[in-house]
Amino acid sequence: MLFRVIYPPLYTTLMESITLPEDMPQIKGYDFNQGLDHKALLQSFLTTGFQASSFGQAVQEVNKMIEKRLEPVQEEHESCDSHTSASGCTIFLGYTSNLISSGVRESIRYLAQHRMVDVIVTTAGGIEEDFIKCLAPTYLGDFSLKGKELRQQGINRIGNLLVPNDNYCKFEDWLMPILDQMVLEQKTEGTHWTPSKMIHRLGKEINNPDSVYYWAYKNDIPVFSPALTDGSLGDMIYFHSYKNPGLLLDIVEDIRRLNSKAVFAKSTGMIILGGGLVKHHIANANLMRNGADFAVFVNTGQEFDGSDSGARPDEAISWGKIRMDASPVKVYADASIVFPLLVAETFAHNANRLIKEKKSD
Amino acid sequence: MLFRVIYPPLYTTLMESITLPEDMPQIKGYDFNQGLDHKALLQSFLTTGFQASSFGQAVQEVNKMIEKRLEPVQEEHESCDSHTSASGCTIFLGYTSNLISSGVRESIRYLAQHRMVDVIVTTAGGIEEDFIKCLAPTYLGDFSLKGKELRQQGINRIGNLLVPNDNYCKFEDWLMPILDQMVLEQKTEGTHWTPSKMIHRLGKEINNPDSVYYWAYKNDIPVFSPALTDGSLGDMIYFHSYKNPGLLLDIVEDIRRLNSKAVFAKSTGMIILGGGLVKHHIANANLMRNGADFAVFVNTGQEFDGSDSGARPDEAISWGKIRMDASPVKVYADASIVFPLLVAETFAHNANRLIKEKKSD
Amino acid sequence: MLFRVIYPPLYTTLMESITLPEDMPQIKGYDFNQGLDHKALLQSFLTTGFQASSFGQAVQEVNKMIEKRLEPVQEEHESCDSHTSASGCTIFLGYTSNLISSGVRESIRYLAQHRMVDVIVTTAGGIEEDFIKCLAPTYLGDFSLKGKELRQQGINRIGNLLVPNDNYCKFEDWLMPILDQMVLEQKTEGTHWTPSKMIHRLGKEINNPDSVYYWAYKNDIPVFSPALTDGSLGDMIYFHSYKNPGLLLDIVEDIRRLNSKAVFAKSTGMIILGGGLVKHHIANANLMRNGADFAVFVNTGQEFDGSDSGARPDEAISWGKIRMDASPVKVYADASIVFPLLVAETFAHNANRLIKEKKSD
Amino acid sequence: MLFRVIYPPLYTTLMESITLPEDMPQIKGYDFNQGLDHKALLQSFLTTGFQASSFGQAVQEVNKMIEKRLEPVQEEHESCDSHTSASGCTIFLGYTSNLISSGVRESIRYLAQHRMVDVIVTTAGGIEEDFIKCLAPTYLGDFSLKGKELRQQGINRIGNLLVPNDNYCKFEDWLMPILDQMVLEQKTEGTHWTPSKMIHRLGKEINNPDSVYYWAYKNDIPVFSPALTDGSLGDMIYFHSYKNPGLLLDIVEDIRRLNSKAVFAKSTGMIILGGGLVKHHIANANLMRNGADFAVFVNTGQEFDGSDSGARPDEAISWGKIRMDASPVKVYADASIVFPLLVAETFAHNANRLIKEKKSD
Repeated sequence: MLFRVIYPPLYTTLMESITLPEDMPQIKGYDFNQGLDHKALLQSFLTTGFQASSFGQAVQEVNKMIEKRLEPVQEEHESCDSHTSASGCTIFLGYTSNLISSGVRESIRYLAQHRMVDVIVTTAGGIEEDFIKCLAPTYLGDFSLKGKELRQQGINRIGNLLVPNDNYCKFEDWLMPILDQMVLEQKTEGTHWTPSKMIHRLGKEINNPDSVYYWAYKNDIPVFSPALTDGSLGDMIYFHSYKNPGLLLDIVEDIRRLNSKAVFAKSTGMIILGGGLVKHHIANANLMRNGADFAVFVNTGQEFDGSDSGARPDEAISWGKIRMDASPVKVYADASIVFPLLVAETFAHNANRLIKEKKSD
Repeated sequence: MLFRVIYPPLYTTLMESITLPEDMPQIKGYDFNQGLDHKALLQSFLTTGFQASSFGQAVQEVNKMIEKRLEPVQEEHESCDSHTSASGCTIFLGYTSNLISSGVRESIRYLAQHRMVDVIVTTAGGIEEDFIKCLAPTYLGDFSLKGKELRQQGINRIGNLLVPNDNYCKFEDWLMPILDQMVLEQKTEGTHWTPSKMIHRLGKEINNPDSVYYWAYKNDIPVFSPALTDGSLGDMIYFHSYKNPGLLLDIVEDIRRLNSKAVFAKSTGMIILGGGLVKHHIANANLMRNGADFAVFVNTGQEFDGSDSGARPDEAISWGKIRMDASPVKVYADASIVFPLLVAETFAHNANRLIKEKKSD
Repeated sequence: MLFRVIYPPLYTTLMESITLPEDMPQIKGYDFNQGLDHKALLQSFLTTGFQASSFGQAVQEVNKMIEKRLEPVQEEHESCDSHTSASGCTIFLGYTSNLISSGVRESIRYLAQHRMVDVIVTTAGGIEEDFIKCLAPTYLGDFSLKGKELRQQGINRIGNLLVPNDNYCKFEDWLMPILDQMVLEQKTEGTHWTPSKMIHRLGKEINNPDSVYYWAYKNDIPVFSPALTDGSLGDMIYFHSYKNPGLLLDIVEDIRRLNSKAVFAKSTGMIILGGGLVKHHIANANLMRNGADFAVFVNTGQEFDGSDSGARPDEAISWGKIRMDASPVKVYADASIVFPLLVAETFAHNANRLIKEKKSD
Repeated sequence: MLFRVIYPPLYTTLMESITLPEDMPQIKGYDFNQGLDHKALLQSFLTTGFQASSFGQAVQEVNKMIEKRLEPVQEEHESCDSHTSASGCTIFLGYTSNLISSGVRESIRYLAQHRMVDVIVTTAGGIEEDFIKCLAPTYLGDFSLKGKELRQQGINRIGNLLVPNDNYCKFEDWLMPILDQMVLEQKTEGTHWTPSKMIHRLGKEINNPDSVYYWAYKNDIPVFSPALTDGSLGDMIYFHSYKNPGLLLDIVEDIRRLNSKAVFAKSTGMIILGGGLVKHHIANANLMRNGADFAVFVNTGQEFDGSDSGARPDEAISWGKIRMDASPVKVYADASIVFPLLVAETFAHNANRLIKEKKSD
């Protein structure tokens, strides 16, 4: 904002600007005078600036994962190594529990249904809320409803969502016989239960195409949730353990399985919605391979408090969780708005190619 | 998560849930299996939860403003009161400077061009950056570019945007003769300059259909910016005052004009992007009429620090800035993503009706 | 801001204010003219407003936990129930990994050392970083250091902290023999390992009074970390499992143990720093007793994205995780500033009484 | 977290760490075993990490301003230039309105009373709330009180503060005669009113040592608030203008005065609490001198939305608002907690030297 020839006080001379590269994008938003074309509108985000540009970059980053995924993978003559992934890019999808409670669940279910992702990591709530929604609906409420009144009405609040206590009763009725059966199999067949095996089994039992984990079961997508006891599932396991004790859930076998998915991948991409365990767990697995090749984070966390949740992707590069030559993207936004739009411009946009690929496997 | 009949420890009985109203929306996200229909995707946001639902509610709230606006306004027989607005709903649009630097500018320009809003409030940067963009482009950079290196290159950073010093030099060349002219008119014609009058004049001078304020000038939409000296315009006015002193910018006449816009409106709606002055100034004007009838806030501020920027709409109800029976909406999001989508589903969606209405005025 | 008798436009009459209660605190900050008295300064926070007041309320809430804790617990004649806590208030402390990396660790260690808390919940990093700090220091860096350069230098970044790779090598050297021993004990003695048992053992092995978990071991404070494999410990366990396979870590026994701590407590208090797993896990355990009696959350999360991390305590009341008649407090702040000050005004302030109580056990 | 000699999968070798500089601070928090020494506790923040370290750095930065301020300023032989500041460091203090509503006001008043700062910038509310507090108290409420109920009770909410309507009535009674007098002086004496002159006058009229602006008046500290009409003052001016029209408030003279304060300073320091206008206005004035020498920002804004409020100090370096060789500090925190502590460790800590200096002027 300064000034070349000014009198009297010429305290400063303006630094002459360097010439910016020819191909540097100019900022330009969508012009509604050209009519309402949603596709073009979303494409204009790349040159809109701020988080709109970050969204545009996230679309590009996920589409890079998809292109890599679609690359023909050379048949290893000696396919003796059964670990090696058949996909050109192993995509790790992580999300916090609340997103399954929200309508983002339907986007996630779509990805699992069409085997568009390879590994899922979520928290206990991210598992159980999917099954509960097969049993009874979640409702739209308001962030400011009073806890005491809701408690007296038997209604639980998750942000602006409402879940009646009855839903958890239905879940209990559904789950308890399965827990009995799991204990029986452990005792009689020596089944070694881990969180991922339990989720696989529950996905089979729910037998409902609305369920994310039904499709993960069908498509053999492993789902990791090491703290699976931290939620309603844990409550049930706790009470059940008094009636029918003995169930073991081992987390060592799961960490081997998760890390192997990263280690034996041709290349990897991480798509992580929210922070906490799910973000750290996927990134840590990718450390085992010296870093993911592609990464998109969507969350509202900030780095200033030193949390892993809020850390920028660049922090993960220092650890070797993301490769030094990668171009990771963080979108600072609530995933409920951004993730469905991101799926639209990436996986759904490429649905024909991705689904064909799957079928021709 | 609790349990009806459990042994041994039955410490708690689950409160039975009340029956929720039949018409309470169930949470359900978009199903990409039905194909990629962006319009339907955005409509699904209302039942997606969290900020996606807030976006859906914001769409409804702005559409209420539009319907009210399109209502036939009864001709007052004695149309002696020239103050009274001819529109069924006077829409106040406010935004911070950075949004004009970003591609959100094109959405705002569309609204001004088609006279879809009635009053604009912004900060000094929100004025000057619009004119500067008529003279030279703004570029897409990165949040992590180093300030010292940019300074040495003559490049200024705004988030992930870059503005070369040269742009400000061009602005200076354009503005200085206009300031001379303004001082002359003040001295010879007794023009009483206020920020809104100066902006009107600059909009006329820029004479460029890319400019928001060109259209505000053409369509006689008043633009208020009481701290108009807080930016490059102020720098110029400061230096110019040594060469050619005497310019006055009076803020008293503008507060009369702004408040009158609220007071004499049939009904009012507020659409405010970002916080600080623009949020407070519009809300304070609406206090003069015992509160706005409709309100949408889009920003990333939080209430915990007691800032007006982060305050929820409910705080404004306590002050009488929003009516007690209104249903104001706050979307916690970066406006660069949300505002173009919001315009798409409201003003652009109703473009035919709104533009016809304007023409038939 | 409106006006009783004004002409011409009297659109509004000001609602007369109700008389506020006599004992309602008036806002008044610290007067430095009375000299610099830090204790009085911190006490003035209660009437300073915004988060300063929340801090003051958090001090009151923790001091209520302490008073309850110090109440004489009636001897049960039939003390057959070994589960029942001997303390008047069982305090659950949770914190995210980064706080152990920071100097907040010393505050936490103080609480463990003097048995001022009863149950600890943290993430894998919250365990391992404590041990690593016994082996080599963590340094103060800067949030903006470049990930690529740090990676090339073998330095890992955690916010503005730096941890050299060497520290992890030292950790490996220390841990591997212990893992061998754990596998041996499992095979030969049938030890049933859980995360909390492993942490207890590591606390014994580190044998260093700088360590939080050394004191947790000494004072028999259980430490829960169900996803203990999610970090460097998991990396080690993963690699170790190829050399010396077979280790099991069961999370079912730990959920029984954690929940029992809540269920059998006379009353409970929750002090939770940060979000994610640690916040949910403690609150979920307290659901098993129909809610905690006291609660303080310190974090920077926001509720708008529907995350459990950002949820206000009032959401937990709807779930029965906090009692309906409790007065829980959330402080929106980075715990690195707030928690040492909170410990100062609560536990450290009452150190004489608390430490005496412990000794007379 | 990787591993030197591991079999079978040795995918990665750990980069050896560089040796960090000897004087790099090690992370170490306060040890309460040494007793409760608040001063030492606050000093330990520098090595505590995250925002505690940022606080420690802010203390250092403000103390640098103070040392510079206390340096003997060489007498200019020809002291003809009355503009030149007599202080070694001209300190600009900015804060948003809510901080005057809170108890932070008493810290600010202390700084004004003892002439520890040289220039103040705030918003309209930051002016009027100080005077209103001289007439009637503000109370501590709660963030979740319902707007509709408060409105019906005549109570206004500011975060967790409450201000009765009556307070504004008292303010009206006090202000209206002063406005009459100002119009009279303008008409009879040709007084050219600007926001800073009006604030000076109001500071004189309030004649109350609790008032920040009383002391600003007494100590001749200019207070800038270019959008002075944006609040209750503007409401009053608006209504008053119908009874007694003609008052002018010119913002051009004030921008000259503010910029001159920066331009003619020996060196400058900026202390800015909150964002919006106050942050931009001070930084823009310092652009006129090619950047401030010292800077501390305290706010909760984030850079991701491209707002000036949330911008890191490094963005201001690109603009030349802060010098390239400066070491500016941002503390991400609510100022209600941080600012009183910051004043304690800087201005109050140096009170004897600072107040002596003032007296010997």
